[in-house]
Amino acid sequence: MLLYARHTTLAAVEGLSVAELDHLHDESSNSIGALLAHIAAVERGYQCITFEERPPSAVEQAAWEPALKLGANGRRLLRNEPLEHYVHELGEVRRRTLEELAARDDAWLDRTLTAAPAMNAHWAWFHVAEDEINHRGQIRWLRARLTSAAGRPNRG
Amino acid sequence: MLLYARHTTLAAVEGLSVAELDHLHDESSNSIGALLAHIAAVERGYQCITFEERPPSAVEQAAWEPALKLGANGRRLLRNEPLEHYVHELGEVRRRTLEELAARDDAWLDRTLTAAPAMNAHWAWFHVAEDEINHRGQIRWLRARLTSAAGRPNRG
Repeated sequence: MLLYARHTTLAAVEGLSVAELDHLHDESSNSIGALLAHIAAVERGYQCITFEERPPSAVEQAAWEPALKLGANGRRLLRNEPLEHYVHELGEVRRRTLEELAARDDAWLDRTLTAAPAMNAHWAWFHVAEDEINHRGQIRWLRARLTSAAGRPNRG
Repeated sequence: MLLYARHTTLAAVEGLSVAELDHLHDESSNSIGALLAHIAAVERGYQCITFEERPPSAVEQAAWEPALKLGANGRRLLRNEPLEHYVHELGEVRRRTLEELAARDDAWLDRTLTAAPAMNAHWAWFHVAEDEINHRGQIRWLRARLTSAAGRPNRG
C-alpha cells in the first residue's frame, strides 16, 4: 500500500517545474510542492511515533511544522525548490521506513504504541498511506488546473 | 480500512445541502454529490469483479457510467439529490460488500480474479478504499471553498 500510494504520487507530479510546484490555486490553497513536503513530514513524524516510540521533540516539531500544518507558513516557506528536492526527501524518508519495517514482524504491527496509545503501528502506517492518497487526490485536481503545458487532464 | 475511509468520507459531507452537493467549483469540476455517487459506483463495480467474478454487463456499465467516468455527463445527470440519497446508496452498497467479505477467507483475497487477471481481490478492495480516500481529499478541498455557511476550514 505504501509503495503503490507513492508510485501514484510521483506519477501525479512528474515533470512539474518550480513555478508549477509553487503555484497557488487560490489564497487558501497549498501548493503541490508544499503537499509533497507534507507527505514526507507526516511519514517522518510517524517514524518517531512507531519506530522510536517517542513523540517528535520540540526542535523537530518546529522544523516540520510548516510542512505538517501547511497553511500560511507553508505558503511562505515551502517554495523555490525543484521537483528533485521533494522527490529526494520523499525517497530518503521512505528508504528508512522500509528498512525499519523489514526489521520488524507482524506482532510488532499489532502492539499499542507507547507514544500514541490510541493506535498501533499497523493503523499508523495505514494512516500514512491514507493521508498521502488524500493529498494525491488534491494534487491531481490542482495539476489539472495548471494553466501551463504541464497541466494534463484530471485523472481523478 | 474500508470502514475508516467511509467514516471520514461521511464526516467530510455531513450537513451539506442539495445546492452545496451540486455546486461546481469551476467548469471542469465534479460536484461533491457526483463524487459520492462515484464512490458508490466504483464499489459496485468491484463487487462484480470480485464477488461475482465477471465484468459489469453492458446495461450496468451504461447505468453506472456517469458516476464512474464523471466529467460532463456526471455534471449533467448527478444532481438534485439530497445528502440522504447518496448516503443511502453508499450504505446499501457497503452492506453487501461487508456481507460478501464476511463469507470469504484470507485465501480468497489472494486468488487472481478471473474477471481481472492483473489483480487479486485483496488489491481490488485496497483500491476501492484508495479511490475513495483520493476523492475524499478532493471533497474536503471543495467543501472548504463553499461560500455558504456549511463551508468549514479545510481539514486537509
